[in-house]
Amino acid sequence: MNKIGKLQDHLKENSVDAAFITNPDNVFYFTGFKSNPHERLLGVMIFSGAEPFLICPQMEIPDAEAAGWKGQVIGHTDTENAMEILFDAAQEKMAQIQTLAIEKTHMIVERYDAINEFFGTPKIVGIDEKVNAMRVIKDGSELEILREAAALADYAIEVAAKTIREGITEIEVMTEIELSLKRRGVTHMSFDTTVLTGDHAASPHGKTGDRKLQKGDLVLFDLGVVHRGYCSDITRTLALGEPGEEQKKVYNIVLEAEMAAVNAVKPGVTAAELDGIARNVITEAGYGEYFTHRLGHGLGISVHEFPSLHGSNDMKMEAGMVFTIEPGIYVPGKVGVRIEDDLAVTEDGVEILTKYPKELQIINN
Amino acid sequence: MNKIGKLQDHLKENSVDAAFITNPDNVFYFTGFKSNPHERLLGVMIFSGAEPFLICPQMEIPDAEAAGWKGQVIGHTDTENAMEILFDAAQEKMAQIQTLAIEKTHMIVERYDAINEFFGTPKIVGIDEKVNAMRVIKDGSELEILREAAALADYAIEVAAKTIREGITEIEVMTEIELSLKRRGVTHMSFDTTVLTGDHAASPHGKTGDRKLQKGDLVLFDLGVVHRGYCSDITRTLALGEPGEEQKKVYNIVLEAEMAAVNAVKPGVTAAELDGIARNVITEAGYGEYFTHRLGHGLGISVHEFPSLHGSNDMKMEAGMVFTIEPGIYVPGKVGVRIEDDLAVTEDGVEILTKYPKELQIINN
Repeated sequence: MNKIGKLQDHLKENSVDAAFITNPDNVFYFTGFKSNPHERLLGVMIFSGAEPFLICPQMEIPDAEAAGWKGQVIGHTDTENAMEILFDAAQEKMAQIQTLAIEKTHMIVERYDAINEFFGTPKIVGIDEKVNAMRVIKDGSELEILREAAALADYAIEVAAKTIREGITEIEVMTEIELSLKRRGVTHMSFDTTVLTGDHAASPHGKTGDRKLQKGDLVLFDLGVVHRGYCSDITRTLALGEPGEEQKKVYNIVLEAEMAAVNAVKPGVTAAELDGIARNVITEAGYGEYFTHRLGHGLGISVHEFPSLHGSNDMKMEAGMVFTIEPGIYVPGKVGVRIEDDLAVTEDGVEILTKYPKELQIINN
Repeated sequence: MNKIGKLQDHLKENSVDAAFITNPDNVFYFTGFKSNPHERLLGVMIFSGAEPFLICPQMEIPDAEAAGWKGQVIGHTDTENAMEILFDAAQEKMAQIQTLAIEKTHMIVERYDAINEFFGTPKIVGIDEKVNAMRVIKDGSELEILREAAALADYAIEVAAKTIREGITEIEVMTEIELSLKRRGVTHMSFDTTVLTGDHAASPHGKTGDRKLQKGDLVLFDLGVVHRGYCSDITRTLALGEPGEEQKKVYNIVLEAEMAAVNAVKPGVTAAELDGIARNVITEAGYGEYFTHRLGHGLGISVHEFPSLHGSNDMKMEAGMVFTIEPGIYVPGKVGVRIEDDLAVTEDGVEILTKYPKELQIINN
């Protein structure tokens, strides 16, 4: 059954008249139309008992149709009140919406107020959990796209390994990686490509800059591509020339933690258990305080989606879930290492989507 | 007076106890710290009568401090309830917040619900208009940065003019432009660089693709850079070889409309009047139905901010406002032309920040 049909069933079962989906990633999921509307209104109104419609800026209607949306499209221009147009269009489908579902993690308060005004303070319920539960299990065609996206991330690390040399800057390496991907048809990265070298890598959210690579540096790459609407996300830490003893030690602890968590993935294990498996390895090695973030995050249309792999999430893994595992150790001013793979849960274990080697690669370009 | 001090005065005058600012662009405006927190909580709590604090993911604290934020920073980790930590920190500053200001155009319903829960349903007011009113008037140092950002946009069009030739694809041209900017230190574009050729340009939000440029094409470039936290945004339509008569005709109508609006900019004129001046030129030439969007938009930390230049906005222009003027004509399947400048309102007129020539450039590479 198609995605809109599944959501309609859910609405019927829960006596919800309609769901207004406005998160652009969710609009893409249900309609195939990917657009960043900035402050303009973009959404799909899905009724329990009527045909859905898409609402978007007037000038994007041809793009929505070109993207394959076959249903009704309502346009609005910059001088019109888009929420009023939404209400008028909804009324034609259903005279009185008594219960309306919205994405509480996306809708802004201004639109929430406008909905209450135009729709006469309907009962508002959240649809986030249901949409997340749908999106969290990838079907076969989504998995195929995610495999391709991961292969492009692997390729980017191959380019990185060929590009690093003494004296080149982080930004120059980043540029070469992105240029190589563009030559393979990649038009968007899934987030800002990160290249961090030496002690610079010890900030897990450090910014790529003008620092020049030096022999003996560990160089951390964190990047991903958007491919046919889906994201990949890989981290590798490469050595430029022979690294020092503490760098090697930290690297191998992170690698052990990463592989322990990866090998534990199968249906039934919880997110918290996976986080704990990696964290225990790092804590027992004496670096627990330097692993300052969660183990990983779901991956799909969004680069950060469900499930969230952190220590207090008891969600059980199921076949079709796709997420990252990415432990790291960041000793301020000294050393930063992170290793990240994209994984899919299978019926009896795990498929690792990113395939670039994880043993410490010592690069002598 | 500094920006936080100005906002505190506004809170006092309006008997608002505190404002919780979460729009990342506004957080940058008040703190100097630019960060994309994804789904994590980032915000600055500004009290009418106490010192402000920044709340951000634990691992970003060093980055916030490196960005120059001298005030208190509260961190939260992925396993904690960030809204509870926010509430606890706020309580230490002020035992009871009775009236709290939020950005209604940014805060999501989920956080709004959490604020009501933790803070005991305070009176909630919107602070959007005040922050927009502050941001809409640029000071001297902001104008200087915007001039530099515009000069980089001009440079990008120069590169575009040198790069286009018969047979090159839109994506290849885009890549060359972005690579040239990266060599000048540009790390972020302010939005996806658009290169559209021939009838492809007739969709005002068309996507750059594999189409090859042909002699006689008009090629539309829409792009901008982020420079020291501020955006530029330029559109030029260049001719590759001699264009046809209708293309030239449409180009010159758009140029006349653009210049008429630009020349009318001065303190006191309204956004609607400017929109009307450009629209009249196009309508009288018989192409009114093909100018399908507003005249322009404010520009600053965000690539789309206030003022919005559309036909029903009676906001009066004031010295220090910076915005785009970008009329266009899009005849589906035939021809698309847009010309866009970035402008600053001065005490007695206008300063045009983007300086690339606007007369039709016929490129014979």
